[in-house]
Amino acid sequence: MRNEIAWDKADMYANRLTDIAPFRVMELMERAKALQESGKYVVHLEVGEPDFPTAEPIVAAGIRALAAGETKYTQALGIPQLRERIALFYQTTAGISVPPERIVITSGASGGLLLLCGLTLNPADELLMSDPGYPCNEVFVGLVNAMPVRMPLTIEAGYQVQLDALEAHWSPRTRGVLLASPANPTGAVIGRERLAGLIAESHRRGGFVLLDEIYQGLIYTETPEYRSGLQINQDIFVLNSFSKYFGMTGWRLGWMVVPDGAISSISRLAQNLFISPSSIAQHAALVAFDDAAMEIHEARRWAFAKRRDLLAEGLKSLGFEIPFLPDGAFYLYVDISRTGIKAEEFCWRLLDEYQVAVTPGIDFGSYRADAFVRFAYTTADADIQLGLERLRSALTHWGIECG
Amino acid sequence: MRNEIAWDKADMYANRLTDIAPFRVMELMERAKALQESGKYVVHLEVGEPDFPTAEPIVAAGIRALAAGETKYTQALGIPQLRERIALFYQTTAGISVPPERIVITSGASGGLLLLCGLTLNPADELLMSDPGYPCNEVFVGLVNAMPVRMPLTIEAGYQVQLDALEAHWSPRTRGVLLASPANPTGAVIGRERLAGLIAESHRRGGFVLLDEIYQGLIYTETPEYRSGLQINQDIFVLNSFSKYFGMTGWRLGWMVVPDGAISSISRLAQNLFISPSSIAQHAALVAFDDAAMEIHEARRWAFAKRRDLLAEGLKSLGFEIPFLPDGAFYLYVDISRTGIKAEEFCWRLLDEYQVAVTPGIDFGSYRADAFVRFAYTTADADIQLGLERLRSALTHWGIECG
Repeated sequence: MRNEIAWDKADMYANRLTDIAPFRVMELMERAKALQESGKYVVHLEVGEPDFPTAEPIVAAGIRALAAGETKYTQALGIPQLRERIALFYQTTAGISVPPERIVITSGASGGLLLLCGLTLNPADELLMSDPGYPCNEVFVGLVNAMPVRMPLTIEAGYQVQLDALEAHWSPRTRGVLLASPANPTGAVIGRERLAGLIAESHRRGGFVLLDEIYQGLIYTETPEYRSGLQINQDIFVLNSFSKYFGMTGWRLGWMVVPDGAISSISRLAQNLFISPSSIAQHAALVAFDDAAMEIHEARRWAFAKRRDLLAEGLKSLGFEIPFLPDGAFYLYVDISRTGIKAEEFCWRLLDEYQVAVTPGIDFGSYRADAFVRFAYTTADADIQLGLERLRSALTHWGIECG
Repeated sequence: MRNEIAWDKADMYANRLTDIAPFRVMELMERAKALQESGKYVVHLEVGEPDFPTAEPIVAAGIRALAAGETKYTQALGIPQLRERIALFYQTTAGISVPPERIVITSGASGGLLLLCGLTLNPADELLMSDPGYPCNEVFVGLVNAMPVRMPLTIEAGYQVQLDALEAHWSPRTRGVLLASPANPTGAVIGRERLAGLIAESHRRGGFVLLDEIYQGLIYTETPEYRSGLQINQDIFVLNSFSKYFGMTGWRLGWMVVPDGAISSISRLAQNLFISPSSIAQHAALVAFDDAAMEIHEARRWAFAKRRDLLAEGLKSLGFEIPFLPDGAFYLYVDISRTGIKAEEFCWRLLDEYQVAVTPGIDFGSYRADAFVRFAYTTADADIQLGLERLRSALTHWGIECG
């Protein structure tokens, strides 16, 4: 039995759906897959996921957890041992004391972002965020019917949120600001003084600070200025993840740190919306901070740093400007406007004609999105090199000067 | 640095937080844990989780998936093999053809409920649901600032949603109805004719039907009238889960079936809100429908049926009325008003004085909640027997007649 309801009409569904554009990169990846299946070798510089598998000690711990029958619901905020282990991690790496009670284990950083939006935002409230930025942020805000307000970032300002931009975009409806360091898609790390200023100003205005630190471990300086925004101020909401530095994407595990006063509310939300994070992932993550796994993660960090340099040098030699080398994450966000080709067309042509996949700026916002492309260095050196050579061929063939 | 923001004040947070009551059963479980740690033996009849571990073939498949490095993000809607496997399951068990494209793998049924609320509800929209019912439903609806409207269920009507109740509660703001079969906390299964009538009426009014079938496998009749509401109508949204019948609670995996026209919207929401469900859980679940695992699940189903009968007979012999034996899930929702004790006090006294944990009606709604207690038969026969004997002692000691 079928009925008269027009299930295929957009106006059947909630208004927020019309605000959610499909990721362009998904269509590109579909195309890349088709090319591969037709026998072409595709260079993947579009993927926001480390190519490295989960470190062997974590996989082994996951297998042990399964064999030991750790397959039941856990506490909604996570198993106490993991919350304690993360507290110890903050103590040893950042020298700060974060009580385990304030650490909340989540179903990926996505789960944390959902909880924070549910906690802080009423309908029509505004949350400031950067443009470009992680594209899903807007959708979480829209889910609770609040409004994302985007602050343009310029390459001239090192892709940093400026204090005057915060002030200029703050309205009576603004509830707070979402910052990211290191950031997707720019790789930019927020300097300590700047972050302190942004937090102080937001708090002075009675606003929340949500700080996305999911690329926190992936900073390519020997001695970072700080290891967590919590060193600057403990009254912020910090999002973190086991996906990127810890290489556990498919496990769907993250964590948050919240102020004392938010724990009971977050707990009720988490009980209702998630029941619990994955028991297996939590037990596996217990060893993620141990020496055996950390050695692997650190080696990968320096491999990423090397890839960044390789990619940046290669792009420069092709005539692209890389005014500063971003300190973190695994992306370069590159101005391609000198090619005279709009970013989305650039991506399609590069994929179709030269089998190199990159992500157009439109996936990360609207500010100068046509002029930018994100290159992810989540693939091996040889692939990066091949991608650069193919890009050189493309530019040459398209009549664009290289370097 | 601390600042002047009152993080511990409820009015700092979104309004929806004030509508979320903590689960009473959580406090009871804390108390039960403390009693256990003091050396007492507690009988657990409060837990909505099968006591059985995940079936060994599924655990083994999870271990194989980990060893094979299946630790990356998957497609947002799930791996194609699992979607196909579920389609085959509908074909073989229910005799219906459901294209894999309409099957969406989710992070538990919780993930599915989030997607459906995000898909269908605008602020101030109303969604009809039963009272009593699964307590988290209201919170998902509140997350998107819509309104749950609860239809009281009576034991006299077999805890069934009546067509005239649907009509009486339907308002111009109603977007649809959430039904559950078998239902938590009542165990009631919706009869085929009734379900067909409710679906037809909702559709006639232009409304959605969200059908919670997470206890679908746990029906204790040899030949159920139907295996899925999809046999009645394919234009409904069905929620299902690997947690209950398939014993995979801690893995956090579920699925949905959605109408054709909803696939692209659900896909965009899922990409943004979840990235993907757990890769490990998905690969493990591939064997959940195979004979080796199904034999275990079926044996457990009949063990649950036996426990239900044991618990129901025992409660009857203590003078409680069990006007009908519910056909599914693993709960009895029992009127305890003849004791003269309000349900919440009843639960606390039974736990404190006799170390038997059950859940008060208030956790499932407000309609006659003071008069009802949920007994879960998620524990071994011997524990159920012990719980019944302790309940007999309690009633006797409290001066309440037994049977």
